[in-house]
Amino acid sequence: MQINLIPGGFSISLNGLEILRHTAASPALFVGHGEERMDMYRGNFEIDDYVVERTPLAHAVVTGERIEFSAAEGLPARFVMTVSGDHLATEALDPTINRVWLRVAAEKDEHVWGGGEQMSYFDMRGRKFPLWTSEPGVGRDKSTEITFKADVTGKSGGDYYNTNYPQPTYISSRKYALHVETTAYSVFDFRRDGFHEIEIWAVPERLEFFSGSSFIDLVGQLSNRFGRQPTLPDWVYGGAILGLKDGENSFARMEKMREAGVKVSGLWCEDWVGLRHTSFGARLFWDWQANEARYPSLRQKIAELNDSGVRFLGYVNPYLCVDGPLFPVADAKGYFAKDDQGKTALVDFGEFDCGVVDFTNPDAADWFAEEVIGKNMLDFGLSGWMADFGEYLPIDVKLSNSVDAKLMHNAWPTLWAEVNAKAVASRGKTGEALFFMRAGFTGVQAHCPLLWGGDQSVDFTRHDGLVTVICGALSSGLLGNAYHHSDIGGYTSLFGNVRTPELIMRWAEMAAFTPVMRSHEGNRPKDNLQIDQDAEVLAHFARMTSIYVHLAPYLRELSDEAASTGLPVQRPLFLHHENDRNTYAIQDAYLYGRDLLVAPVWQAGQAEREVYLPQGETWVHVWSGAAHTGGETVTVPAPLGQPPVFYRQGAARETLFQSIKAA
Amino acid sequence: MQINLIPGGFSISLNGLEILRHTAASPALFVGHGEERMDMYRGNFEIDDYVVERTPLAHAVVTGERIEFSAAEGLPARFVMTVSGDHLATEALDPTINRVWLRVAAEKDEHVWGGGEQMSYFDMRGRKFPLWTSEPGVGRDKSTEITFKADVTGKSGGDYYNTNYPQPTYISSRKYALHVETTAYSVFDFRRDGFHEIEIWAVPERLEFFSGSSFIDLVGQLSNRFGRQPTLPDWVYGGAILGLKDGENSFARMEKMREAGVKVSGLWCEDWVGLRHTSFGARLFWDWQANEARYPSLRQKIAELNDSGVRFLGYVNPYLCVDGPLFPVADAKGYFAKDDQGKTALVDFGEFDCGVVDFTNPDAADWFAEEVIGKNMLDFGLSGWMADFGEYLPIDVKLSNSVDAKLMHNAWPTLWAEVNAKAVASRGKTGEALFFMRAGFTGVQAHCPLLWGGDQSVDFTRHDGLVTVICGALSSGLLGNAYHHSDIGGYTSLFGNVRTPELIMRWAEMAAFTPVMRSHEGNRPKDNLQIDQDAEVLAHFARMTSIYVHLAPYLRELSDEAASTGLPVQRPLFLHHENDRNTYAIQDAYLYGRDLLVAPVWQAGQAEREVYLPQGETWVHVWSGAAHTGGETVTVPAPLGQPPVFYRQGAARETLFQSIKAA
Repeated sequence: MQINLIPGGFSISLNGLEILRHTAASPALFVGHGEERMDMYRGNFEIDDYVVERTPLAHAVVTGERIEFSAAEGLPARFVMTVSGDHLATEALDPTINRVWLRVAAEKDEHVWGGGEQMSYFDMRGRKFPLWTSEPGVGRDKSTEITFKADVTGKSGGDYYNTNYPQPTYISSRKYALHVETTAYSVFDFRRDGFHEIEIWAVPERLEFFSGSSFIDLVGQLSNRFGRQPTLPDWVYGGAILGLKDGENSFARMEKMREAGVKVSGLWCEDWVGLRHTSFGARLFWDWQANEARYPSLRQKIAELNDSGVRFLGYVNPYLCVDGPLFPVADAKGYFAKDDQGKTALVDFGEFDCGVVDFTNPDAADWFAEEVIGKNMLDFGLSGWMADFGEYLPIDVKLSNSVDAKLMHNAWPTLWAEVNAKAVASRGKTGEALFFMRAGFTGVQAHCPLLWGGDQSVDFTRHDGLVTVICGALSSGLLGNAYHHSDIGGYTSLFGNVRTPELIMRWAEMAAFTPVMRSHEGNRPKDNLQIDQDAEVLAHFARMTSIYVHLAPYLRELSDEAASTGLPVQRPLFLHHENDRNTYAIQDAYLYGRDLLVAPVWQAGQAEREVYLPQGETWVHVWSGAAHTGGETVTVPAPLGQPPVFYRQGAARETLFQSIKAA
Repeated sequence: MQINLIPGGFSISLNGLEILRHTAASPALFVGHGEERMDMYRGNFEIDDYVVERTPLAHAVVTGERIEFSAAEGLPARFVMTVSGDHLATEALDPTINRVWLRVAAEKDEHVWGGGEQMSYFDMRGRKFPLWTSEPGVGRDKSTEITFKADVTGKSGGDYYNTNYPQPTYISSRKYALHVETTAYSVFDFRRDGFHEIEIWAVPERLEFFSGSSFIDLVGQLSNRFGRQPTLPDWVYGGAILGLKDGENSFARMEKMREAGVKVSGLWCEDWVGLRHTSFGARLFWDWQANEARYPSLRQKIAELNDSGVRFLGYVNPYLCVDGPLFPVADAKGYFAKDDQGKTALVDFGEFDCGVVDFTNPDAADWFAEEVIGKNMLDFGLSGWMADFGEYLPIDVKLSNSVDAKLMHNAWPTLWAEVNAKAVASRGKTGEALFFMRAGFTGVQAHCPLLWGGDQSVDFTRHDGLVTVICGALSSGLLGNAYHHSDIGGYTSLFGNVRTPELIMRWAEMAAFTPVMRSHEGNRPKDNLQIDQDAEVLAHFARMTSIYVHLAPYLRELSDEAASTGLPVQRPLFLHHENDRNTYAIQDAYLYGRDLLVAPVWQAGQAEREVYLPQGETWVHVWSGAAHTGGETVTVPAPLGQPPVFYRQGAARETLFQSIKAA
């Protein structure tokens, strides 16, 4: 990066691209002091800020790479930026500063993407995005009844920006990326024509800039920066991971589905730990070991499953319930986060209390990795699990590293991923055992082999239904998360909202064109249709698993590519078509690798779909074989079982793609 | 007021009471710059502010009565305060300043009241109150279905602070009052223990302070400051004003009600101007003159009514519909506000457009007072009217006085009141013709003889039902509005919410103990129960009008007292019991004059009610005659027809009060 002196100030450019422009009349930096209010309700937050001071630091003195800022000439410097390579190091000289606002140069027609895993808006321009890991919300749209009811009953309706996985990093259509290295609450405000405003509730470690010759180049750089996942485990290519939580009955149900033609790679039983019965219904028992009552002789069953080519997967999260056998062990060792009085902090998860394992204590993290995940899960025979609940660190606990829990809250998902990855590595199972997370933050990429899109509602809604999964895959994929998948059929069924056969089928159609197909029975299995309860749905699902398996050779190449280049499996259209600006805001279709274009049907009752095909290629509709010249929006039939998918004419795997329809 | 030098700063005290304390380490003044976004949707506003700068002006130099503020020593002064008597004059030396924040000294257990006419919270401590005249909202509680539906369908759900009549004035339990002289958007923030923060989106004219030996003294001072209403017209004491809008059928319905024993002082027909039929239902025709089709021979009817002791009242608002005969007259004279292009601005009120009569043009105001109100209404025989819609001035019109409409928006209700008062005065009818307004702002007191509490929902809800009217009467009463009343039975019936007989009866019970009893058919008369449709309701109403008439000698004394001292008719308990702090937060009971304590039943299905009785007096329950020593909460039976009312033993009107039950 280069500092250039301009009349009344300076500008900073990155390979010739102006990133920052500061003059006394139009300052780029504001500092001050805020008093935040943050209230957490079971993973949902109410946050507001009383900004006591916001002072433009209008006066800047540049000395070499160092820029000293003050409010006016003659006043002492309050803030320093130092340009070093592609980083901008920041330092406050005034200890009262706990808010920093930085204006980054913007152009009116600029697009921006990223922000972690965003579920509502892929192109973030025109909106404001707080970056704070939390429940994403139920409904996520203040104009819907479900959101209203979730808000009123549990403060849990959410909004467009709520996500399990925020990250203060974006890519601009100007072909640069910006990353703020901080775990503090921050806000990206992309609402103004001439600048983006970055707000940080702390003095950040630094700001990092990346410039690229192409978007592919930028994505590769970010993947190098944040970490890269191993290739997918071989066993995954065998079919879908069936999510069943029906105790030992799960095995028989799986067999029946296999008999119906479903290709199965894994059986995922989150209830492997047993159940707790509360007034809200059955919950998992939050003590992480097999439950003999619910799954008798499970090791034997797992071995038999493996013999038949199917892996077994479970569930874990970073809490331990007070009435389970692990709690007193961890408590005796002092491994839990503490309350104000120095006692073990207890968190109410709904009629049961839990301790928070304090991963800032290396001994506690090691204990959890070895004794819980290592021995109880990996050594027991599990090949994977959902690593849930990374986003719930209470903001008022006292941690072993003495850092404010408000600063550790965003860091928690990555610490949690690291504990899981360490356990997997300790057994030499990296790239073989597959855990999946919804929570994330900067650096989760280095540890978590697979994202899952969190708890969608069981519907086609714009902000909490099927379509949001695409947005999540594309945004997180740009920041170095190569693998994304979701609960087929969605998860959250509340207030009478239940799954339709159509929803499950449309979701399965999409999932066949993602790295991992996995089903879920949802939060209320008995109230909702299950795949094995409807012959049409079951046959459709079986066929989609065949397509998934058919595409395995291609997916294996994409996985190799991801491991070597950092390119995600699911990609926004613009990644391979950066000169076609029509692709920049598309968030309901994606490239599956370079050569397949997938445009899932994401609304109910559709017989056809419009799809924009990028310029410069010929795109062949896989079901009809019709070829379309790119650069236009086409409408194709989209009956159930024929999701709009196109291959790129001349692709290396053309023959494989041509035979999708026969799979 | 006195400036005192203290280490590192100064303090300002008012008769020994510290009001402001400023030091470099803890500044009292912040200035800066904001970029507001204000969107209006039919009287409802979405407002937010991008605060670009908020600088503490830490450095203060006191020279005599003048205080110059700068951000730091050595920097030029940006703001000046000048202490002059009980005023604090303010001046910005920096033209970029459009936001001012001032911290006023506060105590932890302090209470604050005022803010204009507040409908949700009488004691404002612990909350933040934007002061901007608007629709108050339907439901006004984000946790209710009605509010949600109103928000989604019309952005009209509102919140606790939305009011037709805000005013940047408060009274503190420390026995001082503060008034900000400005019409700009402002915010009173009473959420902090150690200070109140006053935010103003402009440099205010000045801040005015009042100190009092008692709350009664303070209320009297505010009434002197803002203006005082005349006594009630003699004719009002004759009974209720019946609100009917049934065309000429209204007369027959009134007669039937009189035959049933209802005492009637006036007949109020808002549809006297005729109707317009829209897809939303019948609306009034916004052209202000009698409609011969709907009310044939109305002058004759009015004369006959007057002969029988009943006055006739109508309706007017400051808009003129484009398809009425008055519009082209005003348009030809250039009396309407203009749009950006200098053309007459047209405002859509729902399938019909109107011009906004520009009251900043003295000729336009005079024309409206003389030609519309004077000739069409007063000379026609009207004895009063609802003067509606003062809160709708669009913020983007161009006005004759060249002041930004954002600054005139809050001023509009007072200008509108002045036009009405001028018309009344021109006919020598001050204190005789009675118009009533819901909209208000600083100074409306001098012109508007009677407030009406706006459009409550037809229910018992906490934030939009019957009880909110008490809060409105008490808060506005402290600021010099002696007379308040409301629509008996409420007004707004939406989303299936309709009146119950109980609601009408409870409302009438309360209204009998207010300055004016007036009924309203509501926004959807045909969907809702009317008083004359139910024998029990009608008989109950008749009895309540008898009680109202019975109390007329007492009310006449209260009206004389209001005219001479500025004390409101309805008073918070603490006004006469300032040493009893138990009374400070009570907002669901009031004193009706000094000698009656009224505690309306404001919830459904109640057979009794708890009432706090102030210390130092003996309170006699008017229905049972039971005497209670003050200082305790008592529970009294409260069947329909017996609202909890107590008189002060030994009151001058004791005999009158004893015979209420026989009225």
